[in-house]
Amino acid sequence: MGLQTSLEDIVGKDYVITDPQALVPYSHDEYLRHRNLPPLAILPDSPAEVVEAMKACRAYGVPVTPRGRGTGLAGGAVPLNGSVVLSLERMNRVKELDLEDGTISVEPGLIVEALHHYVESKGLFYPVDPASLDSCSIGGNVATNAGGPRALKYGVTRHYVLGIDAVLPDGRVISHGGKYIKNTTGYDLAHALIGNEGTLCVFTGITLKLIPLPPAQRDLLIPFSTMSDAARAVVKILNQLRIVPAVLEFMDKTSIKVAEAATDKPFPHTDAGAHLLIQLDGLDEEEVDKQMIRVGELCMELGAQDVMVALNDTMRDRLWEARRILHEACNAASSAVEMQDVSVPRSQIPRLLAELEALGKRIDKPIACFGHAGDGNVHVSILHQDEDPEPFLASLDRINTEVLSIVAGLGGTISGEHGIGSVKKKYLERWLGDNEMALMKALKRMLDPEDFLNPQKIVC
Amino acid sequence: MGLQTSLEDIVGKDYVITDPQALVPYSHDEYLRHRNLPPLAILPDSPAEVVEAMKACRAYGVPVTPRGRGTGLAGGAVPLNGSVVLSLERMNRVKELDLEDGTISVEPGLIVEALHHYVESKGLFYPVDPASLDSCSIGGNVATNAGGPRALKYGVTRHYVLGIDAVLPDGRVISHGGKYIKNTTGYDLAHALIGNEGTLCVFTGITLKLIPLPPAQRDLLIPFSTMSDAARAVVKILNQLRIVPAVLEFMDKTSIKVAEAATDKPFPHTDAGAHLLIQLDGLDEEEVDKQMIRVGELCMELGAQDVMVALNDTMRDRLWEARRILHEACNAASSAVEMQDVSVPRSQIPRLLAELEALGKRIDKPIACFGHAGDGNVHVSILHQDEDPEPFLASLDRINTEVLSIVAGLGGTISGEHGIGSVKKKYLERWLGDNEMALMKALKRMLDPEDFLNPQKIVC
Repeated sequence: MGLQTSLEDIVGKDYVITDPQALVPYSHDEYLRHRNLPPLAILPDSPAEVVEAMKACRAYGVPVTPRGRGTGLAGGAVPLNGSVVLSLERMNRVKELDLEDGTISVEPGLIVEALHHYVESKGLFYPVDPASLDSCSIGGNVATNAGGPRALKYGVTRHYVLGIDAVLPDGRVISHGGKYIKNTTGYDLAHALIGNEGTLCVFTGITLKLIPLPPAQRDLLIPFSTMSDAARAVVKILNQLRIVPAVLEFMDKTSIKVAEAATDKPFPHTDAGAHLLIQLDGLDEEEVDKQMIRVGELCMELGAQDVMVALNDTMRDRLWEARRILHEACNAASSAVEMQDVSVPRSQIPRLLAELEALGKRIDKPIACFGHAGDGNVHVSILHQDEDPEPFLASLDRINTEVLSIVAGLGGTISGEHGIGSVKKKYLERWLGDNEMALMKALKRMLDPEDFLNPQKIVC
Repeated sequence: MGLQTSLEDIVGKDYVITDPQALVPYSHDEYLRHRNLPPLAILPDSPAEVVEAMKACRAYGVPVTPRGRGTGLAGGAVPLNGSVVLSLERMNRVKELDLEDGTISVEPGLIVEALHHYVESKGLFYPVDPASLDSCSIGGNVATNAGGPRALKYGVTRHYVLGIDAVLPDGRVISHGGKYIKNTTGYDLAHALIGNEGTLCVFTGITLKLIPLPPAQRDLLIPFSTMSDAARAVVKILNQLRIVPAVLEFMDKTSIKVAEAATDKPFPHTDAGAHLLIQLDGLDEEEVDKQMIRVGELCMELGAQDVMVALNDTMRDRLWEARRILHEACNAASSAVEMQDVSVPRSQIPRLLAELEALGKRIDKPIACFGHAGDGNVHVSILHQDEDPEPFLASLDRINTEVLSIVAGLGGTISGEHGIGSVKKKYLERWLGDNEMALMKALKRMLDPEDFLNPQKIVC
């Protein structure tokens, strides 16, 4: 009896995919240039099936690559070294919403947007909002410690995880935490495992903290002549007004142009050096409007070209349109795109953009920068617009090295929210000090000495 | 040349304490019944001195117990197995406050209240406020992942740590993170180490995220006839008003009586079954007053006996007095106290208190309960008031076992913020499943196979 038959016995014949065509979606994530077809994909429906499937693979010496919904941008879900894909997509149920405790227990395959809608319909809020929220899964979010625009005020995935159930590479099941908010019961196994990108464990159950849904919100789009002006406004909104917006995003000039081309619609203020996209929230409209007036007036004082306010959902969608489509728009505007996800001290964003602009001139490529002005996490898209992508791809390592050397000079890091996966592995190795690298390797070796789970990722 | 001489060469003669009388303060934390005199205490003044001191101790085969300010409540800083104390008290400097980035880099010995005052004088806020904030150190807070009343709205220490420098048991130095807010650069070494209680590393530098200081706040003390009524108000403040107070504490009837006796002042509403202590904050007084009226009216509807509002700092101090002195008051009211720090789903607080009241009757001891109504973290003080503490101490294991069995039945855990240290070690062993215990032990073994750092704690 081969591995395939064993797996069919565990999850049922319909849930072991072997047809090469049907396996294509399991061969890559959203970093589309990195692909590898797995021998098969298994779709278990329960934690017990996950354990049995992993044990069967181990018995056959076949590694396993766990997969949420494949929306990552670092090749973390690409099955390498002959591994089979273990997709959590069928395990997408809400197990328990506890209104009094403000907690929800879910399976890992639940789509984050579905989670949002469900809890918001009860007046509760799970604020973490990665750009892919309509298609990414909560298990993938926990595995990558996903962020999103609301991270400035509300934090990232890690800040909402109260409990986890996980299967370790050797098939042992562990459970940590529960429906309580504070926990100092020995070493924090959950926090040690969050963000492991499927290399240390497979999450099979997650309990999240929910908070009250803010009753009112208001969105603003504010063009500035330069990124420096916009960055000064960011600091003053926080330090002088002492307002923490739910969202404080920026888009540079190249981003706006790319978005304009992709939508074939003219945008107002395309000559602006940078746009800030701000979402304010609070207890009621009166309070939020008061914040809005303070923010708007401050920005005008600091040289904003305009303050556009969304008065209803249609206008809100319009304001957000450019930001939402930017990732796709960058793809549409180029024959090849390389995207970095750097994180710098927020005061360094203007210097980062200036140095990237200079780099773009040197390599003769537009570089679109957008992202999280409030927390310094900047998505850097290097656009190659000639037909033949090969020369660009051949020079990528040199270009990436230049980007990361700029980031190093500004005291930042090479990944703010996308993670390392397989694509950034070689940069991690150059980036980390010897002791940090040794410690990460020791952690991997402790749990997965044979590189059985998500092989050849992060430090392997 | 002995160890003492080596250490004197490293930190200077004045900073190696060997006089037994001078060593007494280094023999215990605030769990006063557990003490052990170390052979000596070293007070290094720099990360380099920490490394050198640890290497010298290792060369002599003498283990090391790191110490912040000894305000812990689980015996975590008690030097066991012949270990010397390594006190970080001299390393108490602010290294850099970055106003634009909203970050501060500090040495571990800095007192948390000094940190509060310093950043608040600049309009910034470090919200974590353990009860011992006037004497505890930030390094100790990171080592224990300290919480406090503001954890409900603002989170615990972990949520503010952006970067750490640490010395591992073998003397290697690691550094993780920096002045950037988002970080997914490989495994999160900082989060894996936060809360290790000095058993996996010594923190020598810490970078913290700061947020804008809320410009306005208002404090309320609200007595209810029963804890169930108070708990119903907690849920409705969060779910119906959708207000997240900065603080949402409770004190039960026994706590109020104990506080009254300690201050020798009559308290209003001593007949109340439970008091809620609420702090609201926001952008301005108008907004906070609006919240206050909503909270006050809701509580009156739900049967509150009164709503006392602090209109100035003197009144605020008065409202907070009982809560602040409770720990000392429990000690003053008894010949021996045993304090548990349990964490349960917040909806289970009334059941927890009812079951503890029944336990108190069975063992004929008052049990004072107070703590964090919003997050379910309850401090349980079992008061022994007979002169001779011995029979009580002899029965402690049985009593603690009963408390923890109640907590298990309610889906909670044995420590919300005080940690395990040496005092709760045996309960941790009974509490955790085999796989979780094995994983914690593996983590310790990975970094400290010889139990050199803070020996005989947590899982050793």
